[in-house]
Amino acid sequence: MTAERLVVVGGDAAGMSAASQARRLKGPDELEIVAFERGHFSSYSACGIPYWVGGQVRGRDELIARTPAEHRERDIELRTRTEVTEVDMAGGRVRSRDLESGAESWTGYDKLVLATGARPVRPELPGIDAPGVHGVQTLDDGQALLDTLAATGGRRAVVVGAGYIGVEMAEALLHRGFEVTVLNRGEQPMATLDPDMGRLVHEAMDGLGITTVNGAAVTGVRTGSDGRVRAVATEDAEYPADVVVLGMGVRPETGLARAAGLPLGVYGGLLTDLALRVRGQENIWAGGDCVEVLDLVSGRERHVPLGTHANKHGQIIGANAGGGYATFPGVVGTAVSKVCDLEIARTGLREKDATEVGLRYVTATIESTSRAGYYPDAGSMTVKMLAERRTGRLLGVQIVGGEGAAKRVDIAAVALTAGMTVEQMTMLDLGYAPPFSPVWDPVLVAARKAVTAVRSTT
Amino acid sequence: MTAERLVVVGGDAAGMSAASQARRLKGPDELEIVAFERGHFSSYSACGIPYWVGGQVRGRDELIARTPAEHRERDIELRTRTEVTEVDMAGGRVRSRDLESGAESWTGYDKLVLATGARPVRPELPGIDAPGVHGVQTLDDGQALLDTLAATGGRRAVVVGAGYIGVEMAEALLHRGFEVTVLNRGEQPMATLDPDMGRLVHEAMDGLGITTVNGAAVTGVRTGSDGRVRAVATEDAEYPADVVVLGMGVRPETGLARAAGLPLGVYGGLLTDLALRVRGQENIWAGGDCVEVLDLVSGRERHVPLGTHANKHGQIIGANAGGGYATFPGVVGTAVSKVCDLEIARTGLREKDATEVGLRYVTATIESTSRAGYYPDAGSMTVKMLAERRTGRLLGVQIVGGEGAAKRVDIAAVALTAGMTVEQMTMLDLGYAPPFSPVWDPVLVAARKAVTAVRSTT
Repeated sequence: MTAERLVVVGGDAAGMSAASQARRLKGPDELEIVAFERGHFSSYSACGIPYWVGGQVRGRDELIARTPAEHRERDIELRTRTEVTEVDMAGGRVRSRDLESGAESWTGYDKLVLATGARPVRPELPGIDAPGVHGVQTLDDGQALLDTLAATGGRRAVVVGAGYIGVEMAEALLHRGFEVTVLNRGEQPMATLDPDMGRLVHEAMDGLGITTVNGAAVTGVRTGSDGRVRAVATEDAEYPADVVVLGMGVRPETGLARAAGLPLGVYGGLLTDLALRVRGQENIWAGGDCVEVLDLVSGRERHVPLGTHANKHGQIIGANAGGGYATFPGVVGTAVSKVCDLEIARTGLREKDATEVGLRYVTATIESTSRAGYYPDAGSMTVKMLAERRTGRLLGVQIVGGEGAAKRVDIAAVALTAGMTVEQMTMLDLGYAPPFSPVWDPVLVAARKAVTAVRSTT
Repeated sequence: MTAERLVVVGGDAAGMSAASQARRLKGPDELEIVAFERGHFSSYSACGIPYWVGGQVRGRDELIARTPAEHRERDIELRTRTEVTEVDMAGGRVRSRDLESGAESWTGYDKLVLATGARPVRPELPGIDAPGVHGVQTLDDGQALLDTLAATGGRRAVVVGAGYIGVEMAEALLHRGFEVTVLNRGEQPMATLDPDMGRLVHEAMDGLGITTVNGAAVTGVRTGSDGRVRAVATEDAEYPADVVVLGMGVRPETGLARAAGLPLGVYGGLLTDLALRVRGQENIWAGGDCVEVLDLVSGRERHVPLGTHANKHGQIIGANAGGGYATFPGVVGTAVSKVCDLEIARTGLREKDATEVGLRYVTATIESTSRAGYYPDAGSMTVKMLAERRTGRLLGVQIVGGEGAAKRVDIAAVALTAGMTVEQMTMLDLGYAPPFSPVWDPVLVAARKAVTAVRSTT
């Protein structure tokens, strides 16, 4: 028997999880696995870069879950610094280029996994490629930024974008002793929250000494006579900068897939079935930041580039490509983050998401504490809950607050997955003891208020 | 129109929540509310007593959510230090005794709420009533214990019982500078966990300098010539003690109900319907520590004396007694606690619970961390999961570990309520960011291992 060959394009979370899981199910006699990665590294935590830059994580290598050498020891032929430049579906092969030598070659596949990830948004603005302007997508990006921080004599940092990466990088730069200004295109930071909750993040960032400018449309980067960044310009003002970090979001990296004629969604991500096979394809799977996923609350596809999904996708794809069976049911849109001691969490739909898909809803916002009010260090938190009008079905939860706020969103994530109503949620048997929760957990308090709101509109 | 009269027996969480909720729905013109409480206080957090004794909570009054005067301001006639001694159902009246004056009187009711709570187990052993031996059920108990701690010159404390109260009081006494010995009748501390998980608690208590003696059956309390406690005796040994705290569990306080011929369950708690009406009664409700509740996982009644349930019961009863409609669906058995920095959580069934109700199960135990492994202060935790054989339905979760361990049990509590399988759980969209979780949350890691265990037995 000749071994089948599984080719994996992309050597980070989704791709290498798929390769590893497939290897667990089938030995090298049955399945040859070849993986291509254009960078130097494999299986690393991009989500950890802000904490490496901020100094909480000591070094780059701590962010690497498994090195190329470790993958190779497990009979996965991982070719780093090698970019796949074409997928020839008719021929069942991929063309790749060695980025060091420039040599090109073709590799045949029986099964193909596309895990090409996402690329940061980097608008074509004057000066955006100047030295001192940094993205933070890869470990190489992180190292380059750290080099700039060490070299510059200045202390002024500008972060463009106020999403997860933006606020996490603002914290990191603050830890490094910089004066931080965050330029935010939107109404409030954290556009993944409703503006009323984003405002709480804004206020907390003010309190931390981070300057946030809302409604700031960046028009260019000003450079000095040495060609290095000096300032960031918006339509209204200029913000002096010794270093600039771009955190403007990411888009699915699907150039290869597009060229091959594979189906893409409205966000530019690959569309798959529930087994994560690319739609219409028998032997091509896709996962991680390059795909769109089903949002179980809205019933629509969304692009949710998160390491936790990429890892799950890899497991599912590896099981299927390895001859097993597994499916990915979809997401509910859970995400957590923090800026210093402020925790930020969301799951499900924001108000505008609900409106967009035709759902009518009520909202309830409450303030409570992470522990019994009389227990020391009880941190306050604000919980906002959306429920469908009439049915009372939970649609979403957003939480902003102190210690213990963020992971409480998991309660809502499971409730959303189960399709619970807010009335059902009021009686959830959640863990209570004074050091861990008020006798009514903040999520239950929000659910009770949401019940009242649902009743008042029926 | 003459006002109806609602009589409430018991002025803590369940009783006064019921009174307050009923008052919200009906004004004093429609509904007169009379509540009887034999103690001095109303609506207090008994769960907070260990933290008051331990010194984290400054004073008794911080544990009182609402004073008798505050209830009276809201047109609830609360008679403290007044004990109800008889329920005359045929006559629709209760007999009460003023504990100060000894005067007795009858009060008629149209609707009755029994919220008589629980009483601590206090075996009839020689010396058990000696000065220096304390329960911690009421605020008066807490004050008496604090008085003893302040007065004694000795530093040796013995805690009898190693359940929630026992381990919390061990922590409190440690904080007060005492040498603490915990005498535990069972195989391991925290009998609400399986013994393999209880062993982890035992080891952590050792590490904190708390001596735990398992298999210790207390036979009596030895007293000195002054009549005060000197030691606690077991079948095998004597443990010197300057103060003794009893934490041997509680039983439903249902003497009144029993005398009135109301239905009690196997644990001695009142049996109710889903609206929390006492079974067979039109106008009598019961809630809090004096009732048995439906365990949604086993389908059996259990006695789960917890403030969080008592508050929910009060809400439900108040809604119904106030002319509205609400039901209590049941519990899944969630409880959290801590000993110093060790967090302890459980929900659902233990191995012996599952066996008792005829369920065949598999278990999976994993170790993981509360944050990404590379993030500072990632605390370790052990998660044990039980799943039904063949169906893979989640049956229970137990967690022991550092910061961030306990409240993760809420994920499982919601999943149990929703009847999820462990396979469904593996794909839950839980909050991930390096400061909050590894890329696979520990609960997901346990679910994955449980899936493998389920498959291997099908």
